[in-house]
Amino acid sequence: MSTAAAVPFSRENLESILKRRFFFAPAFEIYGGVSGLYDFGPPGCALQANIVDVWRKHFILEEDMLEVDCTMLTPHEVLKTSGHVDKFADWMCRDLKTGEIFRADHLVEEVLEARLKGDREARGLAAEVVEEDEDKKKRKKKVKEIKAIRLPDEEAKEYEIILAKIDGFSGPELGQLMIKYKIGNPATNGPLEQPKEFNLMFETAIGPSGQLKGYLRPETAQGQFLNFNKLLDFNNEKMPFASASIGKSFRNEISPRSGLLRVREFLMAEIEHYVDPNDKSHKSFDDFKDVKLNFLPRDIQEAGKTEPITTTVGEAVSSKMVDNETLGYFLARIYLFLTKIGVDPTRLRFRQHMSNEMAHYAQDCWDAELHTSYGWIECVGCADRSAYDLTVHSARTKEKLVVREPLPEPKKVTRLEVEIDKRKFGPKFKKNAPLVENWLTGRTECELEDLAKELDEKLSISAKISGFEEPVEIGQDLIKIEEKTHVEHVREYTPNVIEPSFGIGRILYAIFEHTFWARPGSESRCVLSLPPLVAPTKVLLVPLSTNDRLSPITKKVSKILRSHQIPFKIDDSSASIGKRYARNDELGTPFGVTIDFDSVDDGSVTLRERDSTKQVRGAIDDVVLAIKNITYNGVSWEDGTKNLVPFESKGDDE
Amino acid sequence: MSTAAAVPFSRENLESILKRRFFFAPAFEIYGGVSGLYDFGPPGCALQANIVDVWRKHFILEEDMLEVDCTMLTPHEVLKTSGHVDKFADWMCRDLKTGEIFRADHLVEEVLEARLKGDREARGLAAEVVEEDEDKKKRKKKVKEIKAIRLPDEEAKEYEIILAKIDGFSGPELGQLMIKYKIGNPATNGPLEQPKEFNLMFETAIGPSGQLKGYLRPETAQGQFLNFNKLLDFNNEKMPFASASIGKSFRNEISPRSGLLRVREFLMAEIEHYVDPNDKSHKSFDDFKDVKLNFLPRDIQEAGKTEPITTTVGEAVSSKMVDNETLGYFLARIYLFLTKIGVDPTRLRFRQHMSNEMAHYAQDCWDAELHTSYGWIECVGCADRSAYDLTVHSARTKEKLVVREPLPEPKKVTRLEVEIDKRKFGPKFKKNAPLVENWLTGRTECELEDLAKELDEKLSISAKISGFEEPVEIGQDLIKIEEKTHVEHVREYTPNVIEPSFGIGRILYAIFEHTFWARPGSESRCVLSLPPLVAPTKVLLVPLSTNDRLSPITKKVSKILRSHQIPFKIDDSSASIGKRYARNDELGTPFGVTIDFDSVDDGSVTLRERDSTKQVRGAIDDVVLAIKNITYNGVSWEDGTKNLVPFESKGDDE
Repeated sequence: MSTAAAVPFSRENLESILKRRFFFAPAFEIYGGVSGLYDFGPPGCALQANIVDVWRKHFILEEDMLEVDCTMLTPHEVLKTSGHVDKFADWMCRDLKTGEIFRADHLVEEVLEARLKGDREARGLAAEVVEEDEDKKKRKKKVKEIKAIRLPDEEAKEYEIILAKIDGFSGPELGQLMIKYKIGNPATNGPLEQPKEFNLMFETAIGPSGQLKGYLRPETAQGQFLNFNKLLDFNNEKMPFASASIGKSFRNEISPRSGLLRVREFLMAEIEHYVDPNDKSHKSFDDFKDVKLNFLPRDIQEAGKTEPITTTVGEAVSSKMVDNETLGYFLARIYLFLTKIGVDPTRLRFRQHMSNEMAHYAQDCWDAELHTSYGWIECVGCADRSAYDLTVHSARTKEKLVVREPLPEPKKVTRLEVEIDKRKFGPKFKKNAPLVENWLTGRTECELEDLAKELDEKLSISAKISGFEEPVEIGQDLIKIEEKTHVEHVREYTPNVIEPSFGIGRILYAIFEHTFWARPGSESRCVLSLPPLVAPTKVLLVPLSTNDRLSPITKKVSKILRSHQIPFKIDDSSASIGKRYARNDELGTPFGVTIDFDSVDDGSVTLRERDSTKQVRGAIDDVVLAIKNITYNGVSWEDGTKNLVPFESKGDDE
Repeated sequence: MSTAAAVPFSRENLESILKRRFFFAPAFEIYGGVSGLYDFGPPGCALQANIVDVWRKHFILEEDMLEVDCTMLTPHEVLKTSGHVDKFADWMCRDLKTGEIFRADHLVEEVLEARLKGDREARGLAAEVVEEDEDKKKRKKKVKEIKAIRLPDEEAKEYEIILAKIDGFSGPELGQLMIKYKIGNPATNGPLEQPKEFNLMFETAIGPSGQLKGYLRPETAQGQFLNFNKLLDFNNEKMPFASASIGKSFRNEISPRSGLLRVREFLMAEIEHYVDPNDKSHKSFDDFKDVKLNFLPRDIQEAGKTEPITTTVGEAVSSKMVDNETLGYFLARIYLFLTKIGVDPTRLRFRQHMSNEMAHYAQDCWDAELHTSYGWIECVGCADRSAYDLTVHSARTKEKLVVREPLPEPKKVTRLEVEIDKRKFGPKFKKNAPLVENWLTGRTECELEDLAKELDEKLSISAKISGFEEPVEIGQDLIKIEEKTHVEHVREYTPNVIEPSFGIGRILYAIFEHTFWARPGSESRCVLSLPPLVAPTKVLLVPLSTNDRLSPITKKVSKILRSHQIPFKIDDSSASIGKRYARNDELGTPFGVTIDFDSVDDGSVTLRERDSTKQVRGAIDDVVLAIKNITYNGVSWEDGTKNLVPFESKGDDE
């Protein structure tokens, strides 16, 4: 692919091929389609299945994770407890006259961008040369024709600042911007309602009475948490361990866009790795500490910069940029997984979440972002959910979700401890009391030292607790922090959860962009350089002509390929060899096997490599062995084919 | 398993093991659970994944089917057209006082059964010795204590007859039975409303306006039909071909029961095989025509009998018991699939649907039924959906869903043709006109001959058309059937669809029952004899003691197993070898590899077979090869281990 740069990337070409080859298509298209819903056709479905298969081997098998398959239908109570009923929402504005609905942040973004563009035109500045994506073009149609109106200098500057941090505004803040800058329906300029929260979960009723409200899950995580005790038991009470789940989740987007990147039904693969909060080391960390990644930590972003730091995971953890070994371990493993399935490592970065953008449950979070023509896209989240979920479900159900660790022998322990005045504590925090209590009892010795000092000096402590928006003030009237001595037999704790969470559809789309190119000199001949491991079909079998003499050997090769479980297709159409290969380059098929009249005589066949169009020749069994080694055993083309003879194309191909 | 019969099957034991080993469990159990929703734990999830994997290889890969992955969210319009909005329903009765809801057919069944039991007691007859399932026992609790009341002889006889055909009553008929026999709320005897239809689809709203009504799909089929044109194009317009899909579907059961057999969210694997209605032959039929199956055709059932006919598929098709080769081909392939994954062939039969129980779209249908302690359970349906779905979607969307077959050369054709008087035909049949027209134009030459005769004699024809409950009368005023001569270049037709549809959860449960047994002499030692191919874990690796000397060789064996991608678990606990094996017999792990001090000296290990508890010994590589051949290549234990040496257990095991 060293020649790829020669032809500039065209999303239009890529999309046309993905559609034509039925990688995916809008669902219900003959009914006009429903936005945000897509069907995967045969090659997309196979690619997805292969990626899932690699994921399963890379994460689940390698680490003996406990895979579960939980239901998508989820009762209201569970998602109320997890916080999704209250907080899993976007802000929308309604035009009461036309009935149109806009997502508030997108609306403000589009209108201000349009005005800035008009301003630039009015000032006679050259339009910026930005390749605008199809999708944005379509959206822009909503904004009535851009008028070349000059803005006051000050206002233009304000717009720039707002756009730079558009993801960080709350609904009411967006509402204020709409008032301040008179933002209405872009098409009619008509007035809009103030932003209202719209919950993104699909609601339904379970059972015939209609009284059991339920939702389609917004993530696979909750089912895993609810089974924590069963999983710990299955794991013979050993810690740390991980559960994992692969399945569909749902998100009722207000106005889906960007193709596969923002959809209403999507495949996720999620790991919940349970660790001792006092020990977030990882036994295999050393094996991966030398993996180099591009990090974009919080402080760089706060300084308004986007240049990542490239360093090893070992360095990142020892410098405390990445909080702990387990988090670092997973970042490295995520990198190795993504690059194995076709992600371009130069277009992959790990961005730390800013504190105002983190999910309501997260303590810290790094996203694996992939660069596409839509910009940098979050494809994998790697969050430390702390003890949040287990704590809230346990508090709500009165079911303990904890680890009990027998101590090797009874132990006299002197240590700082929090003593809670329950008579005052309960009434003060009400239903949140268990959360606050769990936070307090979950502090390490070091943290307690600091807290004891703070309590002594300020007569209260200020605690940042997941699940609360504001720091929680806890005064001396409610708690004491003092040294106590006990004899202990068992240690009991709520594990913390490190969660790597993969959006398979987004990864899939990024891989399309990262592996797509056109052959220089013939721009209409496009190639998807999917790694053989994940390519939907591994081999195209091509009899040189439709002559009957070739058919026994075609059958023989088919049989051998099938017996090795190598997915292949036969193309025995009368199209030229070149055309047949071109079709399969678009499908990402890495190998071609050509059968000609020499094959009939000596049993040899030609093997063609998709990206280089190099060809080699050899006996059928040797060629199949080469295909197998390159596809499944990570052998390079050069090593895999070194026993085969280079072969000159007869001009039928490139 | 020849000894299995010695200990009678106990569902209670099986269920307790399935729960304890976390094959599956009620979802949201710590919240009290939601009936009809189950989560699969690690072994259940792995077993399910392995079954799906075998399914994919057995059907999709073997026949180059086009796998697709379509959305579960489905807009109202699609399911209105398919008939599900109007007809995918059960009948329910509400108790207006208590708010309880009953499924009408289940209610009538339970009450009449309870009364018959009371009658028998009153007559002093011995209670029948019927092993009553747990589930039924629970349901019976609804029925207040059974009173020993003698029924009039005539009435008792009527009850028997009603119960024999309980599945065949319509809602209003059930309502009449409830009035006639004074059936009310079994617990209170309070009055119930008359049966009302309850649609079994989960409803939701797509998008923020709440105006786009949608459902969770009740089957994966519709998504495949809607993509028909894209699939045909992908297949280079070649017929016949099949699409396939594996995914979750949903059914809002009124009162779910029977564990995994009747659930609200379930995994399906469905094939839609598109054929020329004039040619339902199958190219591979001959390869499978000698497969023998147990058939229970319609006429045997109508005679009130249940003894199946055992014959070959070839016989069944040539005698017209099974309508066509493609249907017969799939019945044989379904049989081979099910027996490969652990179904007991003596507990598998193919039952033809009675005409009154067929789904609204089906033309003919055979179910693969598996026998369990709940009775015979439909696990795979194999229906001829005719051209119904493609026809109705095409009529609704005005999008042609047809095959165009270029004729080798223009052809003068003289044949019977239906001429429709559109001016009268349209107004008469209104929105159903396309259905009737398609039926008429889809008749074969032979059928047209008969119809022409009928039209001539009776001045009208009576047509049984899928989608209509009653035969449709079509008079001479609307159609003529006459010989016409044309020159034709292309033949255009709507394909028929043969649909094998698999309920994976039900199959899974039946396999549990078919493979579960207790070791004679020690009934508490239970075994799941899952075939190695689908067993969740293939090997239990057991170091004889926790002595450090064994740990290098344990690591070595682990590494070899992992490199062969053979799923295994290590049990290095201090429990006795026998206990450790017993645990894994319950998990269905087919092989044990024991490492002892001899292993350290000579590199040999012991291989144990789960069902026979036979042991053999050999070098690590030979043992791994044996495991691989037996598990994945269908080699028998005897052949696979013939190079290994029989080994006497030291009494630690059985």
